[in-house]
Amino acid sequence: MENFTFQCGTKIIFGKGTEKQVGEETRRFSKKVLLHYGTGSIKKSGLYHTVVESLKRSGVSFTELPGVVPNPRIGLVREGVKTCRENGIDFILAVGGGSVIDSAKAIAAGFYHDGDAWDFFSKKIPIEKALPIGTILTIPAAGSEASPSVVITNEADKSKLSANSNLLRPVFSILNPELTLTLPKFQVACGISDMMAHVIERYFTNTKSVDLTDKLCEATLRSIIKNARLALSDPDNYDYRAELMWASTVAHNGLLGTGRAEDWASHRIEHELSALYDVAHGAGLAVIVPAWMKYVYRHDVKRFAQFARNVWDVSSDSDEKAALEGIGCLRTFFRDIGLPATLKELGIGGEKIGEMAGRCVHRGHIGNFVKLGEKDVAEIYRIALA
Amino acid sequence: MENFTFQCGTKIIFGKGTEKQVGEETRRFSKKVLLHYGTGSIKKSGLYHTVVESLKRSGVSFTELPGVVPNPRIGLVREGVKTCRENGIDFILAVGGGSVIDSAKAIAAGFYHDGDAWDFFSKKIPIEKALPIGTILTIPAAGSEASPSVVITNEADKSKLSANSNLLRPVFSILNPELTLTLPKFQVACGISDMMAHVIERYFTNTKSVDLTDKLCEATLRSIIKNARLALSDPDNYDYRAELMWASTVAHNGLLGTGRAEDWASHRIEHELSALYDVAHGAGLAVIVPAWMKYVYRHDVKRFAQFARNVWDVSSDSDEKAALEGIGCLRTFFRDIGLPATLKELGIGGEKIGEMAGRCVHRGHIGNFVKLGEKDVAEIYRIALA
Repeated sequence: MENFTFQCGTKIIFGKGTEKQVGEETRRFSKKVLLHYGTGSIKKSGLYHTVVESLKRSGVSFTELPGVVPNPRIGLVREGVKTCRENGIDFILAVGGGSVIDSAKAIAAGFYHDGDAWDFFSKKIPIEKALPIGTILTIPAAGSEASPSVVITNEADKSKLSANSNLLRPVFSILNPELTLTLPKFQVACGISDMMAHVIERYFTNTKSVDLTDKLCEATLRSIIKNARLALSDPDNYDYRAELMWASTVAHNGLLGTGRAEDWASHRIEHELSALYDVAHGAGLAVIVPAWMKYVYRHDVKRFAQFARNVWDVSSDSDEKAALEGIGCLRTFFRDIGLPATLKELGIGGEKIGEMAGRCVHRGHIGNFVKLGEKDVAEIYRIALA
Repeated sequence: MENFTFQCGTKIIFGKGTEKQVGEETRRFSKKVLLHYGTGSIKKSGLYHTVVESLKRSGVSFTELPGVVPNPRIGLVREGVKTCRENGIDFILAVGGGSVIDSAKAIAAGFYHDGDAWDFFSKKIPIEKALPIGTILTIPAAGSEASPSVVITNEADKSKLSANSNLLRPVFSILNPELTLTLPKFQVACGISDMMAHVIERYFTNTKSVDLTDKLCEATLRSIIKNARLALSDPDNYDYRAELMWASTVAHNGLLGTGRAEDWASHRIEHELSALYDVAHGAGLAVIVPAWMKYVYRHDVKRFAQFARNVWDVSSDSDEKAALEGIGCLRTFFRDIGLPATLKELGIGGEKIGEMAGRCVHRGHIGNFVKLGEKDVAEIYRIALA
């Protein structure tokens, strides 16, 4: 096991009706906040009304900044920084999915930065101060509700980059699974592949002696797989949604990666896809992760066999066969829950593989489990084609 | 799943050599601290010297309060409160096992309380303010390094009672598994049964739809069982110790109990043992937990069968048989690692069963999985006898 530091202080307020506590929780930090959300679904669902009432009842005033889209844009982040500065705002309340929360995180960091907020992503300058943010999560997927990470897309050059800082962990996150009951099936499925990918990026490691986190990863994956199937076949069931929602947080708050090197190549490879083609992140991952696995599994067949046996109950005695069966199980599962299995199904051909591979590694090799250069990444895109 | 709030902000600094960071970490909070420890083992091991050097290097001055014993006493807590007040101390650094950390927690809460620190335990008055504490853990067992709980013994009336508050979670805990390499085998074994009991108290619940936490509990138990055997047969191996140390924290930081009613009857029943007879808490639990299981398993045979199959790989098709086999596996495991299986082996007869059972329930029924009254508790002690 490697040395590590782990701290996740996000207060999780979980369960039915908890969104009504948002005013009370927000007031502990601020009486003047930015209310940040997406393109209007929270108005249709009535959540907007609940939030506004709760904030008013707690004497919290707010300025609204709607308009966050999937693969959230730096343009809106810049607008958010300006709005916060001009209005003396010192807290951001993000109401939505991972995109809204990530946009809020970028604004929170940008607020204290003299230069452009994109500097954190393009120049990798460290985040030394950030506004506190709180969230009401509406889509279990990205894990941003308790994670230190943020991913933003620059609409000008179509780059999609990430930044990390413990300062970006929300001070509170309200998770009410009831809010997820009306999500479209495709969006649920995208969330499932995203949270599974967060575990898988941690699971495939070269660090030795990581038994506890291995087992926690396997447990989390098994629970996601089981409850994904149940939730999709019985969409009105609260409990299945609750399992998935809590799993999305556990998958990405950092616990499962403690003491081990993490990989993150699949995410980098997918980011180029969603930056260039604006595909849903989860759909892109469903295509890329199994392709990445096929390309790298020979590096540690035993670990892939362990994944197959402990997550998918593969019984083959041969490690090689078990490994391949496990990858097949993952691919079949994604297809079963309605996700694409190939780039072709995403409507993407091979034309830009060279360009994407080049952009993917422009800062050097990616991944830790296997270090990947431009040719490796291009090959993974090719495996993913059909 | 039940609604819940979960927040554990303790910064975990884990790994080889991390105790050298204690000065730096402490200085973020205070320059004048109480250095709280046990009866001298940290002096023999050299840890005391490392800590003192690190504090000095960081310009942190300290007043020492040694003398914490297993089943830590309210008398020393009172002395600690007085020492902190008289010396303008605003931070407590606990260096030791769960007893030292619990003693520090009680001092931290007592500092702001006008009355006696025992009020938090006997009168259950809420803890509304506490000094921050930091820890260097030397025994993986109690999980106090990241938990909100504290257990203190009143030497006057031999009562051993607990209190809880998120304010008692340490602000940082330094966990270096190297420090545990020299622990006596019996102490290691006691730690193992304690951390397993922390998971088991959460696992046996009447709350429905707790799949993720069930699986996380099972994963944690399996990892503890595996690494306990390995660590005891190869005591110099760092990695096995690291798995156990991190498991002790995960077992009791609250994650595994999220969304579910917890039980805690076995702990209450054991506390009367260790209060009256001053036995090691872990040794007492090794006797009491299987006895509790035998008494209550019929309440939910399916859950006990799940425990048997998923934790102990019991293969029996009959739930009843599987349940009993699982309890047997736990008992055998405790015996295998050198722990007692009966009260008799602890040198305890049946004379005080009535008295202990009475004290145990003097505030009413205990436990949630099955609510236990005086007769039930007495019967569990009797089952534990031989």
